[in-house]
Amino acid sequence: MLGLMQQWPLLCHKIIDHAAAQHSRREIVSRSIEGPIVRTTYEQVRERSLRVAARLAAEGFERGDRIATLAWNGARHIEAWYGIMGMGGVYHTLNPRLFPDQIAWIMNHAEDKALFVDLTFLPIVAKIAPLVKSLKKIVVLTDAAHMPAGAPAGAVPYEEWLAEAATGFEWLAMDENEACGMCYTSGTTGDPKGVVYSHRSNVLHAMMAALPDAMGVSSRDVILPVVPMFHANAWGLAQSAPMVGAKLVMPGGKMDGASIYELLDTEKVTFTAAVPTVWLMLLQYLEETGKKLPYLKKVVIGGSACPRAMTKKFQENYDVEVIHAWGMTEMSPLGSLGTQKPETMHLTGEAKLDMQEKQGFAPFGVEMKVTDDDNRELPHDGKTFGRLKVRGPAVAASYYGGAGQEQFDAEGWFDTGDVAHIDENGNMQITDRAKDVIKSGGEWISTITLENLAVGHPDIAEAAAIGIRHPKWDERPLIVAVAKPGKSPTRESLIAFMDGKIAKWWMPDDVVFVSEIPHTATGKIQKTTLREQFKDYRLPTE
Amino acid sequence: MLGLMQQWPLLCHKIIDHAAAQHSRREIVSRSIEGPIVRTTYEQVRERSLRVAARLAAEGFERGDRIATLAWNGARHIEAWYGIMGMGGVYHTLNPRLFPDQIAWIMNHAEDKALFVDLTFLPIVAKIAPLVKSLKKIVVLTDAAHMPAGAPAGAVPYEEWLAEAATGFEWLAMDENEACGMCYTSGTTGDPKGVVYSHRSNVLHAMMAALPDAMGVSSRDVILPVVPMFHANAWGLAQSAPMVGAKLVMPGGKMDGASIYELLDTEKVTFTAAVPTVWLMLLQYLEETGKKLPYLKKVVIGGSACPRAMTKKFQENYDVEVIHAWGMTEMSPLGSLGTQKPETMHLTGEAKLDMQEKQGFAPFGVEMKVTDDDNRELPHDGKTFGRLKVRGPAVAASYYGGAGQEQFDAEGWFDTGDVAHIDENGNMQITDRAKDVIKSGGEWISTITLENLAVGHPDIAEAAAIGIRHPKWDERPLIVAVAKPGKSPTRESLIAFMDGKIAKWWMPDDVVFVSEIPHTATGKIQKTTLREQFKDYRLPTE
Repeated sequence: MLGLMQQWPLLCHKIIDHAAAQHSRREIVSRSIEGPIVRTTYEQVRERSLRVAARLAAEGFERGDRIATLAWNGARHIEAWYGIMGMGGVYHTLNPRLFPDQIAWIMNHAEDKALFVDLTFLPIVAKIAPLVKSLKKIVVLTDAAHMPAGAPAGAVPYEEWLAEAATGFEWLAMDENEACGMCYTSGTTGDPKGVVYSHRSNVLHAMMAALPDAMGVSSRDVILPVVPMFHANAWGLAQSAPMVGAKLVMPGGKMDGASIYELLDTEKVTFTAAVPTVWLMLLQYLEETGKKLPYLKKVVIGGSACPRAMTKKFQENYDVEVIHAWGMTEMSPLGSLGTQKPETMHLTGEAKLDMQEKQGFAPFGVEMKVTDDDNRELPHDGKTFGRLKVRGPAVAASYYGGAGQEQFDAEGWFDTGDVAHIDENGNMQITDRAKDVIKSGGEWISTITLENLAVGHPDIAEAAAIGIRHPKWDERPLIVAVAKPGKSPTRESLIAFMDGKIAKWWMPDDVVFVSEIPHTATGKIQKTTLREQFKDYRLPTE
Repeated sequence: MLGLMQQWPLLCHKIIDHAAAQHSRREIVSRSIEGPIVRTTYEQVRERSLRVAARLAAEGFERGDRIATLAWNGARHIEAWYGIMGMGGVYHTLNPRLFPDQIAWIMNHAEDKALFVDLTFLPIVAKIAPLVKSLKKIVVLTDAAHMPAGAPAGAVPYEEWLAEAATGFEWLAMDENEACGMCYTSGTTGDPKGVVYSHRSNVLHAMMAALPDAMGVSSRDVILPVVPMFHANAWGLAQSAPMVGAKLVMPGGKMDGASIYELLDTEKVTFTAAVPTVWLMLLQYLEETGKKLPYLKKVVIGGSACPRAMTKKFQENYDVEVIHAWGMTEMSPLGSLGTQKPETMHLTGEAKLDMQEKQGFAPFGVEMKVTDDDNRELPHDGKTFGRLKVRGPAVAASYYGGAGQEQFDAEGWFDTGDVAHIDENGNMQITDRAKDVIKSGGEWISTITLENLAVGHPDIAEAAAIGIRHPKWDERPLIVAVAKPGKSPTRESLIAFMDGKIAKWWMPDDVVFVSEIPHTATGKIQKTTLREQFKDYRLPTE
C-alpha cells in the first residue's frame, strides 16, 4: 500500500525558488573580484539563475552535461550553480589550489563541456584550456568592461552573455536521483576520485545541515561561508542558507584577517565557517588591532582538527561559540558537529574545551560506526578506536568511473579512511587516518595524538609521526620534527616532555629533526612522501 | 546521468534507530493511564518497538495492514507507532472525541485489522468492536494487573503480549513511498476523509518541523506535546523529537491546568505545543496560583486562531515566546509558523502582537499561494485574501478511496479550504474558511473578522457570522450571538460597537441572539448547522 502524498521531488532549484518566494529581499553580499562590495537578493539571484539555465540550454548544453566552475564564493558563482542544476546540468567545482595539470586531468576525467571562471583564475585557464578537449565554452564571471586583453580565445563575459538570455525559462522537471554536482577528492595517494551529488542528496544534506544541533541556521542569521564552494560544497551553506532564508556574505578571493574582519563587522555576520588556517589569520589580526566580534555568535571549524587554543580564544576572548565539525567530500560534506548535548551542556572552562576537541555527533541522516580490521563493531567508550564507517542519503555510494570500490561494502557502509573513537554520548573524535596509524604488536597507535603532544613542546614548530618497520613489533613510532626558528630542541628533551602523558608503549622510539615537513596542496602533512623518505630508517630499538 | 549517492530510503524507523544510537539514554517521561509517572529512554523505546513489530508479524499481520490506535500521548503509544511502521503496517490514529458510530465508520472504511487502546477508551471499544468486522486483535496498553474485568473478549494486555515477542526482529526493508500512517479529517461536512502518510512524507515533515524557523527543536530541548498523537500526528513531534534527540514529556489523558503545570515544572519543559483551549486552562491555573514558568521558552499554538490576549500573557507575564502556527491533517500537519523573520524581529509590544496574529510563513517543503475563484494568483500585500493552496512532499495528493478529488488540481495544488492573505514578507493570515466566507456583491467578507470583532463587545460570550441570501448582494452578513450570563446586549449596541472598526459594506445587516451556538466534536462552530437553521431567515435590508 502506497502513501497518498504528493510527488514533490527533492530538486535543488526548489531551494532557490523557496528563497525567492519566502525571503525575496534577503541579501547576498559579495566582495567582487573587480573590487567593490556588490549586493543582490534571493529574488534577483533566482531570476539570474533562470537566465543562466536558459542560456546554457540555448547553446545546446544538455541534461547530464558537466559544467565546471573555477571561482571564489560570490553571488555569480551561486547563480551559476543553480542555473546549471536547473537546466539538468551538473556543476563541477574545480579547486584552483591544485596544479594546472591536475585540474586538466580532473576536467578530462569528468568531460567538462563548459567552464565558469573568475578573473583571478584566467592564468590557470590559459594553461588548462588547450588540454581539455571536451571544453566548448568559457564564461568569465565579470562584465565586458573588465575582460582582460589576454582572456582565452572565445571566452565571453558573464554579464553580457546573461543579458542575451531568453526570459520565461522553466526549471527542468527531473528525477531527484539525477546528478546535480560533482567534486573530486584531492587524495594524498592515487588519482583524484569524483563524487557525484544528486539533487536528492544535496537537498537532504541542506536540511540536515540547518538543523539546530548541526549548523542551526535561520532566516535571522547572517552567514559568511569562508570555506569555499570549490571545497566540499562550502559545507552545504550555498544550499542551507537559501533554504532557511539567511543573508549570505561571500568573501570572494580575500581570506586575510583584515578582509574577513571587515565583512564580519560591516555586515553584522552571526555565523561563519572555515578551516583553522583562516581563523589563525583572523585571530592574529584581532590581537594586533584589539578589535572585537560583537555580532558573531557561532563559528564552525573543520577541514582539519581545530586546535584547542583556537577554540579557547574564540570563546573566552570573543564570546563566539565554536562548533568543531568533521566531514568529507564524499559526505556532501557534513558528518558530525560538536554542538553540546544535554549531557555536556553544563561543561565550562577546560572540561568544555576537552569535549570540544571531539568532532561531535552525527545528525539524523548520518549513520556512524567504528570497526576493527575484521569489521567487528567497537564499543562507544571514548577510547577504543577503529575505522570510521558511515552511511546515509548524502554519502557517496561509489566514485565516478568506479574507482575506489574497496571503500564501499555490501551493506552500504563507506569506509572514511579515518580512525576514530566514539564516546558513550555519541561524540566522535578522529584519532588518525587509517593509512597513517602505527600498528605496533597488533595494537594501533594514533599519530595525531603523538603529533599534537609533540607540538606542545615549546621549541617545536611542527611534528609528524610515522610508523617505521620493526622486526619485533611490526611498526614503531618515529617523530619527525621541525624546530622553531632559533631553537634547538633535542631528542631527549622531546622524549622527556612526552613521557608520562601517553601510554608507555605509545612513546616514540626515536626523534629526527628536519628543516621542513612536506605538505599537500590543501595544507595537510604528506605522510606518503615522509614514509618514502624514511623507509630505510633503522630505529635504535631494533 | 544519475548521482552516485547512497540509496538510503527515508523510513520512519530510521528516526527511532537514530535516537537510540545518538541519544540512547534521553528520556521519554509519560503520565501513565494507571496513574504514576513512568520513565523510559529512546534505547528502550526502540527495543520495545522492535518487539511490537515482531509480535504483529508473528500474528500474521502484513505489510500494508492498517493497525488502529485509540490512545493518549505516552511512550507505549510511540512504541506502537514505530512498531507498526517498522513491520510495514500503517498506524491509524482514531480520535476518541468522535462519536462511537463515527469511529466505527472510519475503522470500517480503513479496514483496520488490529487496535491498540488505552484503558480510558475501553468503553468506546465495547461499542465499536462489534461494528468493525475487519478487527482481529485488540491490545490494551497496560499490563495484566490493570486489565479491567469488563475488557472486550479476546483483548490482551500490552506488556504481557510484548513479553512474548521474539527478539532479533529486523525492520522491514521498504520503499519510502509506502504508507506508514493514516488519519481521518473530522470534516464539518460529509463523511470523514482518510489521509495516508508515507514513510517519506513523515520523515521529511519531521525534518522541516525541526528547522530553526519552524519548531526549532534540539537535543537540549524538553518537549511536551500536549497536542495529541491522534490529532494530526501531534504536529509531527513524535517524529521530530526523536529525530533531534529531545527529551519527551507525554501528558497522558490529563490536560487540566494543574496537571500540565506539574509536568512543565518538574520535568523542566522548554518547548510545548497545543490548541488554545489547553492554554486557557493553564493560564487560568497560573493566575489562580501565582505560579510561574521559569523553564519554558517556547509554545506553539495552533489548531484554531490563537487569541491575541493569550499571546500577550505568555510573552509579557511569563516570558514564553509564542509561535502561532497553522496546518492541516492533509499537511502532516504543519503549513506555516509565526517565527519572526529579520524584517519583523525588532518589533515589540502591540506591533509584535499585531504580527503574531498572523500564522507565519512556510518552511522549505511547503509551497503556498492565494488565488481568486478563477485560480488567478493574488498579490502578497497582506490584504487581498483568497483561497489558500499548498503543495509539498508532506501534502496529501488524494484521500483514501478517492473522496474529495475537487480539492486537488492538475498542477498538484491542494485547496486547503481556508481563505487567507499573505503579506510582503510571506506571512500568512487565515481570514476564513472558504465555505463560510460571505460573498457580497462579488466581494468576500471574512466571517472570522466579524466574529472576532463581535466577541469584543463586553456583553457577548460567543458570536458566529453567516451569509444570508440577499436578492441584490447575493449574500449579506448575519451575526448569531450568545449573551454573557446575566447580560442582555441589544442588536443596536452590537452594531454601534462594530461601526467604524470595519469597512461599511462588511457591517452585519442583522443580529440574532440565541442561547447556544452548535459546535463540532473538536470544538469548532458548526456553521453548516447554523446555516441550515437560518436558511429561511429574511434580512431587514431585503
